[in-house]
Amino acid sequence: MTGTGQADVVVAGGGLIGLSVAWRSALRGLSVTVVDDDPGRGASEAAAGMLAPVTEAAYGEQALLRLCLASVQRWPSFAAELEEAAGSPVGLRTAGTLVVGFDADDVRALDELHAYQLELGLAAQRLTPSATRRREPSLTPRVRGGLAVDGDHSVDGRAVHRALLTAARAAGVQVVRERVAAVGSTGGRATGVELVGGATLRAGTVVLALGAHSGGLAGVPPLPVRPVKGQILRLAGAAGLLEGTVRALVRGRHVYLVPCAEDRLVVGATTEDRGFDATVTAGGVHDLLHDAIEVVPGVSELELVETLARWRPGTADNAPLLGPSSVPGLVLATGHHRNGVLLTPITGDVVAELLATGRLPELAAPFTAERFAHR
Amino acid sequence: MTGTGQADVVVAGGGLIGLSVAWRSALRGLSVTVVDDDPGRGASEAAAGMLAPVTEAAYGEQALLRLCLASVQRWPSFAAELEEAAGSPVGLRTAGTLVVGFDADDVRALDELHAYQLELGLAAQRLTPSATRRREPSLTPRVRGGLAVDGDHSVDGRAVHRALLTAARAAGVQVVRERVAAVGSTGGRATGVELVGGATLRAGTVVLALGAHSGGLAGVPPLPVRPVKGQILRLAGAAGLLEGTVRALVRGRHVYLVPCAEDRLVVGATTEDRGFDATVTAGGVHDLLHDAIEVVPGVSELELVETLARWRPGTADNAPLLGPSSVPGLVLATGHHRNGVLLTPITGDVVAELLATGRLPELAAPFTAERFAHR
Repeated sequence: MTGTGQADVVVAGGGLIGLSVAWRSALRGLSVTVVDDDPGRGASEAAAGMLAPVTEAAYGEQALLRLCLASVQRWPSFAAELEEAAGSPVGLRTAGTLVVGFDADDVRALDELHAYQLELGLAAQRLTPSATRRREPSLTPRVRGGLAVDGDHSVDGRAVHRALLTAARAAGVQVVRERVAAVGSTGGRATGVELVGGATLRAGTVVLALGAHSGGLAGVPPLPVRPVKGQILRLAGAAGLLEGTVRALVRGRHVYLVPCAEDRLVVGATTEDRGFDATVTAGGVHDLLHDAIEVVPGVSELELVETLARWRPGTADNAPLLGPSSVPGLVLATGHHRNGVLLTPITGDVVAELLATGRLPELAAPFTAERFAHR
Repeated sequence: MTGTGQADVVVAGGGLIGLSVAWRSALRGLSVTVVDDDPGRGASEAAAGMLAPVTEAAYGEQALLRLCLASVQRWPSFAAELEEAAGSPVGLRTAGTLVVGFDADDVRALDELHAYQLELGLAAQRLTPSATRRREPSLTPRVRGGLAVDGDHSVDGRAVHRALLTAARAAGVQVVRERVAAVGSTGGRATGVELVGGATLRAGTVVLALGAHSGGLAGVPPLPVRPVKGQILRLAGAAGLLEGTVRALVRGRHVYLVPCAEDRLVVGATTEDRGFDATVTAGGVHDLLHDAIEVVPGVSELELVETLARWRPGTADNAPLLGPSSVPGLVLATGHHRNGVLLTPITGDVVAELLATGRLPELAAPFTAERFAHR
C-alpha cells in the first residue's frame, strides 16, 4: 500500500488524535503510517474547539483535570509549532470563556462550580449580572450571573486538522486512505492492520485512534468506548458578536457559543445516547437554536450554514484510554469524549513518548485501560 | 439560440407559472420558447404545494377566491393530464386540510374564518378538540379546536415542475438556459427578450413570468411586484405522521405542515420583507421548528434535511398580474404571491387562451395590471 515496507507505527484513525500521535511520533524519528478512509470526518469535524478544562471541571475527576490543564498549557506552543510546520493558521483564541446562568438553580450551579474551581486553585472570577454583560454586551439582559475564566480558550478544530495533516506529511507520515477492518496479530501480539480492501499493513506497533469506532474493531479486546451523539450548528455573520466563548446554563440545559474562523459561530451541542445514529433532528436543532437565541438574542439574525451530528468516544469515567492495552503491540489513544481537541497536544506527546522510549509519562498513567480491568 | 427563427411566444421565466403557460400554449399550437438560466430554482423550489383556497380565504379578496377555487377544481384533471404527458407523478394528495388553534384568540380566529367560509358557501367543518385529534392523532393534546376543509389539497411542487418541464418539451417547447436581461421592443411594442450573454430572442409575444424578479426587469413598465421572503424546512422520516395538511395558529403565528413525497414533511413558512435576501436565519428556522413541534410533538424526532429561503412575488392586493400590460406584445403571468402552485393550472389556461385567441377569459379580467393604473 505504502510501497515502503513495514513501518514502525501504524495509526488506525486520522482524526485529530491519530494525526497528533503520528506527527509527534514522526518528529521523534519513527516511521509512521496513518490509515483512514476519510480523515477528519468523525468527531474532529464536529468539535467546537473549546480548550476549557476549568469550565468543564467536575467533581471526582481530578486526574482528568490535571491532564486537561497540562494540555491547555501546552496548546500555545503546540499551535505555534504546528502553524510553523504546516504554514497555515489554527485559529487559537485566547479571549477566555464566560459561563452564564439564567435562573436561581443556574446561579447556584455557577456558585458551586466557582467554589470547586477555587478549591482546586483554578483562576475564575464570579461576576454580577451587569459585569457579565459589560464583558459580552450581546448577552441578554436576563442573565442572572456569570463566571469568567480567562484561561479557557478555543481553536478552530477543522483548521487544526488541516494543519496536522500537512505537518504530519511534511514529517514523513504516510496517509493511506482506506478503512481499517481489523487489527491483525500473530501469537497474541498486534502486527498491523487489515484493510477492508483485503490488504494488510504490518507495523511494529499499532495505535488505535478510531474515536467512537474504537470499541468494536475486530482483533481489538473489548474496550469501554461507546458513541455519544452530539448535534452541533455553525452560523455565519457573527463577526464582532462575541469576544470569547460563552457557555450557558439555560434552566439546567447546557449550551455553548464559540466564535470561530472569520464570521462563524459554533453552537453546541446535544448529548444523546443513540448509538451510531447521525441524524440531525428537528428537536436537536430547535433546542440549540432556542438556547443560543435566549442567551444571545442577536443569534436570531445569523445565517444557519451547517448542521452536523457526530459521536464523541465516551467512556465510563469520561476520561481517555491512553497507552498500552492488554494486547502487546497495541497502543490506545481513544475515548476522549468531550475533550478531544483539548487533549490533542498531550495525547500526541505522551503516546509518542511511549512509542519512542517504551515509557508512558507519569501524567498519563491513570488513563491506561488497566483501570477498567477489575470492574 | 434556438436555431429555429422567431417563436410565436417567448416566456421569460421557467418556474411553475412560466412552464404552465408554455405547455398549455404549445398544446394550442403555438411555437414557444422558455428562457431561464436555472428553471425551477426560484419560489417553485421552496413552495410547500398547498392547494388551499378555502383555508386561505380572506376578507375582501372574493375575486381572488373565485380564481383560486376555479384553479383548485382544475387541479385533478390538470394533474392527470400532466402525469400522462410527462410519465411521472406530481404527488396530488386529497386528504384535505385541518386548521388548528391553541389559545382563545386562535379559536376566535378559527370561528371567524369558519363563519366567513359558510357565508361564501364554502365547505368547512368546525371540530371539537377531541374530534380534531381523532382526525390527526399526532396533534398535541393542547389543541383547542379545529376546522376541517376536505377540499383543500396539496401537490409536490418540485414533482410538478419536473413534470411540466418534460411535458412542455414533449409538446415542442424550447428551453433556453440563459438569464433574461431585458424585454426588447420596437416602436413601443415588445418584440422579444435580450439575454445577459448578448443574444436576442425575438417573438410575437413576450410573457413575463419571472416571479419576484418581474418588477425590476429592464424594458418592462414599473410593476407593483416585490419579493416577500419565505423560509421553509423539509424534514424526513414522517411517513404516517400526518394524514393531510395541518395548518396552525400558534398564539397568532401561522405554521403549516404538509406531508410530501415518500416520508417528507414540509414546514413553512416565514413571511419577511427583506428584499432579495436569501439568508436562512437561526431565528427563522427556530420559529418554524418551535411551532411545528408545538403542534405535532413527534416532529422533534424527524430529520432536518433541508432549509431554504426564496421570494414570493408579492403584490399590493395579494392577487396575481395576469394578461395584457401597458406595453403591446408584453403579457403578464406573475405576482402570484402565496398562490403560485395553486394557480398554476388556471394561469396556464387563461394566458394560453389569451395568446391563442386574443381574448382573456372573464375569470382573469379582475387581475390585469390595469387595476393598479389609477392608484
